[in-house]
Amino acid sequence: MDTAHRKVIRKIQFLDRQGRPLAGSRISLKQTGHEFLFGCGAFDFMPYVVSGNEDFKEITDSWLEIFNYGTLPFYWGNYEPVEGEPKQEDLMKTARYLAERNVKVKGHPLCWHTVCADWLMKYDNETILRKQLERIDREVLGFKGVIDMWDVINEVVIMPIFDKYDNAITRICKEKGRVALIKEVFDRAHADNPDAVLLLNDFNTTINYEILIDGCLNAGVPISAIGIQSHQHQGYWGKEKLEEVLDRFSHFGLPIHFTENTLISGSLMPADIDDLNDWQVEEWPSTPEGEERQAKEIEEMYRTLFAHPLVQAITTWASKDGAWLKAPSGFLRLDNSRKPAFDMLKKLIRQEWWTDTQVVTDDNGYGDVDAFKGDYLISCENGSAKVKLGDDTDTLRML
Amino acid sequence: MDTAHRKVIRKIQFLDRQGRPLAGSRISLKQTGHEFLFGCGAFDFMPYVVSGNEDFKEITDSWLEIFNYGTLPFYWGNYEPVEGEPKQEDLMKTARYLAERNVKVKGHPLCWHTVCADWLMKYDNETILRKQLERIDREVLGFKGVIDMWDVINEVVIMPIFDKYDNAITRICKEKGRVALIKEVFDRAHADNPDAVLLLNDFNTTINYEILIDGCLNAGVPISAIGIQSHQHQGYWGKEKLEEVLDRFSHFGLPIHFTENTLISGSLMPADIDDLNDWQVEEWPSTPEGEERQAKEIEEMYRTLFAHPLVQAITTWASKDGAWLKAPSGFLRLDNSRKPAFDMLKKLIRQEWWTDTQVVTDDNGYGDVDAFKGDYLISCENGSAKVKLGDDTDTLRML
Repeated sequence: MDTAHRKVIRKIQFLDRQGRPLAGSRISLKQTGHEFLFGCGAFDFMPYVVSGNEDFKEITDSWLEIFNYGTLPFYWGNYEPVEGEPKQEDLMKTARYLAERNVKVKGHPLCWHTVCADWLMKYDNETILRKQLERIDREVLGFKGVIDMWDVINEVVIMPIFDKYDNAITRICKEKGRVALIKEVFDRAHADNPDAVLLLNDFNTTINYEILIDGCLNAGVPISAIGIQSHQHQGYWGKEKLEEVLDRFSHFGLPIHFTENTLISGSLMPADIDDLNDWQVEEWPSTPEGEERQAKEIEEMYRTLFAHPLVQAITTWASKDGAWLKAPSGFLRLDNSRKPAFDMLKKLIRQEWWTDTQVVTDDNGYGDVDAFKGDYLISCENGSAKVKLGDDTDTLRML
Repeated sequence: MDTAHRKVIRKIQFLDRQGRPLAGSRISLKQTGHEFLFGCGAFDFMPYVVSGNEDFKEITDSWLEIFNYGTLPFYWGNYEPVEGEPKQEDLMKTARYLAERNVKVKGHPLCWHTVCADWLMKYDNETILRKQLERIDREVLGFKGVIDMWDVINEVVIMPIFDKYDNAITRICKEKGRVALIKEVFDRAHADNPDAVLLLNDFNTTINYEILIDGCLNAGVPISAIGIQSHQHQGYWGKEKLEEVLDRFSHFGLPIHFTENTLISGSLMPADIDDLNDWQVEEWPSTPEGEERQAKEIEEMYRTLFAHPLVQAITTWASKDGAWLKAPSGFLRLDNSRKPAFDMLKKLIRQEWWTDTQVVTDDNGYGDVDAFKGDYLISCENGSAKVKLGDDTDTLRML
């Protein structure tokens, strides 16, 4: 697998504290963070950070051993169950806790027909839309600097035809149409935070979603990245489908985020279930064979996505078993013990795709660097510095 | 079935030649044409009009007994088989012949990946697009006043993924994306003839086409009407599917044209054939039972579409059997004899949905009119006039 596009592979000039070339020096490069976003649902941080619930300490500590990117829940119905009483402080506290640990945070989602606030339904469509846009202002402006990445709108392909139950967002999507609603919410989020990374996110990976994105981009919707869900409760897509999906969604030239990945370490959900939510079970055990399979599938999937130049993020939906649909989809079992997938992924991200190396510079301070893009601690006899190593790095200076 | 929206039902003031109210007069209203577009493929007019081939006289005369709207072929590969040698004169002659007989003409299509000009493939994509736009200028400007209705681009849902054979249009659609190509060709056609009725046309009636239209409209594409193909070689859709399709595509509030309708009077094409073109047969006979069924299905379909306020046109693809795929899809058999569907449709359009009535005016010249919208010859003792009766008609004056 080619990972060259994930690396800086070229001569870089190293400078001392005074800005003079460090000639003939041995420089140590120790990676401290990845440019690539290795993500996971970070919902479990909330009880720990907000309420100090120690039951969650082991889970969140394990989480931090691997991931540099977390999704926090902004489901309107849970976030603001009573109109005017949003859980802004809880989310802010948790987001700051993660940010302090060099974890980038994404808010999920700003607009969605599911887990929507029921109290919205008493309003007419014009008012619902106004309140939706005001909510976007509140979150995007309110969390600016702490959360600068948002799933702006979720699952729009199905949104206007979603018929499981009445809800405020399906109503306005039906009235305005998909693209017009997407444009409203993106324009508002972009106006609130022009530097934010704004995602469109969907589980539908068919031609429907391609045409929807095509329409949005031609209508001037400021989409920063394409979000693709990959809940594989019914079985691993396989490399071929992954590459086929990547191929189709690469067409737009936009960054691609795998936003919600699930692979199961137990028996699979039957293939004839259409809406995954329809599969409600008492328990869904993780099995030894399932765990071996899960680790292999996750490895192949992460390798395939990491190899694709447009993929910038992969987020596993839940770090621990028993989250959505009680599925054994985590890296940790219900007793917090680690599955093979945990060890495999930690090794992949923190060893194979991680740089800890030394460079010897020439007479002009140039050294041949071959290192994964990200954050580094560089050091030599002359000093050290925390630096970023990326596509535009030509020189690195000790402090 | 409610046909009130197809009618003018209200008091209209009748005036004499001097513009004075025609008090207490008996006025005759004889319909001479329909506002609704009852269409049919008019390809068979070409050999008759262009080459004087008398074999086609009976067919075209039958055609003119029913229809007021015809589709003429502008397939690039046939229209301009050698670059720079378009069959402009043949088409102009035929279009004028139809126009002189009060038949509205639509050109089909300006851009399509099928029956495309092979000579385009020697050019790079930039040149192909330029030539496509120049072709639009040539036809839309060249036929302005004779043809003011165009299927601008055909079957875009499949266009960039069409893989049966290489062609110039799939190449540029793949590069530009669907919506951007649609926008280019529509913007050009609209600039060439701002009053023209411009259609997007597709056989795909799924959510794909809905989302494509949604994207186009939000991107400012000047679509005048939504074209829906309904080739039913594999069996009649039925009233329920028709209404479901109408319901979904009504959402945009645009006029809907059923552009290519086919119903078979023989055995049906097997349901497992995906691309209708894959069903190649030596002969495909029309049967007595098939003809009865066809007449019933056409009647139900036309009644269903005529009842829907947004439908402005229904075009049957071919008036005679043996056209596309050799299907027995016509109103005429191979020997030019008339099938039950012919007599049924003529009766429907020229009797049931046709007005020939008299109105007696009051002291101020007002009479209660209840008449299908369209062209009329009105007459009374005081004189007569050829008039249009439509939504904005308040007075009618003798000449």
